Amino acid sequence: MDRLEDRAAITDQMFRYARATDWLEIDNHRLVFVDDAVFATPHSGDLHGIDAVVEYMNRVLPQFEATQHHISNIWIEFDGAESAKAVSYVRAWHRYPDPKKPDMILWGEYHDRWALVDGTWRITERRVLEAGIEPRREGGVPNPRRARA
Amino acid sequence: MDRLEDRAAITDQMFRYARATDWLEIDNHRLVFVDDAVFATPHSGDLHGIDAVVEYMNRVLPQFEATQHHISNIWIEFDGAESAKAVSYVRAWHRYPDPKKPDMILWGEYHDRWALVDGTWRITERRVLEAGIEPRREGGVPNPRRARA
Amino acid sequence: MDRLEDRAAITDQMFRYARATDWLEIDNHRLVFVDDAVFATPHSGDLHGIDAVVEYMNRVLPQFEATQHHISNIWIEFDGAESAKAVSYVRAWHRYPDPKKPDMILWGEYHDRWALVDGTWRITERRVLEAGIEPRREGGVPNPRRARA
Repeated sequence: MDRLEDRAAITDQMFRYARATDWLEIDNHRLVFVDDAVFATPHSGDLHGIDAVVEYMNRVLPQFEATQHHISNIWIEFDGAESAKAVSYVRAWHRYPDPKKPDMILWGEYHDRWALVDGTWRITERRVLEAGIEPRREGGVPNPRRARA
Repeated sequence: MDRLEDRAAITDQMFRYARATDWLEIDNHRLVFVDDAVFATPHSGDLHGIDAVVEYMNRVLPQFEATQHHISNIWIEFDGAESAKAVSYVRAWHRYPDPKKPDMILWGEYHDRWALVDGTWRITERRVLEAGIEPRREGGVPNPRRARA
Repeated sequence: MDRLEDRAAITDQMFRYARATDWLEIDNHRLVFVDDAVFATPHSGDLHGIDAVVEYMNRVLPQFEATQHHISNIWIEFDGAESAKAVSYVRAWHRYPDPKKPDMILWGEYHDRWALVDGTWRITERRVLEAGIEPRREGGVPNPRRARA
């Protein structure tokens, strides 16, 4: 186990992503992703480029009264001096302004590719896998067990 | 990214706080806070001094059958050799002895100031922000998005 | 605070355990436990040896459509060059294929012993303590507050 500084830097960026999302500091995603990043969720499809990511976040997030993205189980594998893969777990809580709408919770995984660019680790690709959503709803979501990175 | 030992030491103290709370080892909070610490929650108001913190914990926590404070997204910024700011997320689960009372869950954030005192990192100020509480209840809680540190 | 590389290696193994469980890569538990490990949960009783652990996992886990084990609050104490104790928190989410069955969630703690064997940190003993289960059910479970390691 080595490259502890790189691991800490990537971990920090993962949390910056969460705060940029939860605090509606959406432009801060520009500090986390590379310009030509790919961001893919089961709901967004594949988004190409940081402008598309920021546009998507600006469109989707303000509908919630609050969100909180708890990141855990961070696993990083380096495949070069400036390149890494990572898997992490997320429990993403979403509260609607309408008190009659139940909170929506995503149990998911982030499957990422990271690159060291000008001294900063950034996401080049993030794929969000759903393990499940609460409240439970109809319709198929790939089980990450069968959608391994 | 440096000062990894200091980061690990602060992280350890954050978890000591959780265990002191969840295991009712409330006096262990004296190992986590400085004597003249400020501890503030939306429910407690600002508490001044470790004695007030311990008194508050001893008063509030035994009403629960169990609690669990899951800490994640730990973000630390040093602003001196012996001084740091930190933000972390917490999902605090509280179970009442009465099985008809639903579990209470706080989705929150800790906004801290830390100091290195006699070789040990300790909290000088901890402010708990609420992103939301389950079950949902009436009344306003500042959304941390709008209550940034 | 030192031995950061050892801490990171143990942490990595904790997450490998979670993925081996959640992704049904159950044989990967052989990379996490020593051959003669003890694994104990309130439901399994004490299991002796990795074969028993793998058999138990293979029997129990496929009944769920999905699981996710979020590990947090990882606390490691070394009591030798090749030996450590660890406590961590887990929120283990289990979804049944039957959509009418509510998700089952364990709020628990792992109380572990770890050993460095041939250059790899492995679990020699893992005891799972329950802080609580959702949905709440009858019957006594030792409260980890009173079942400290």
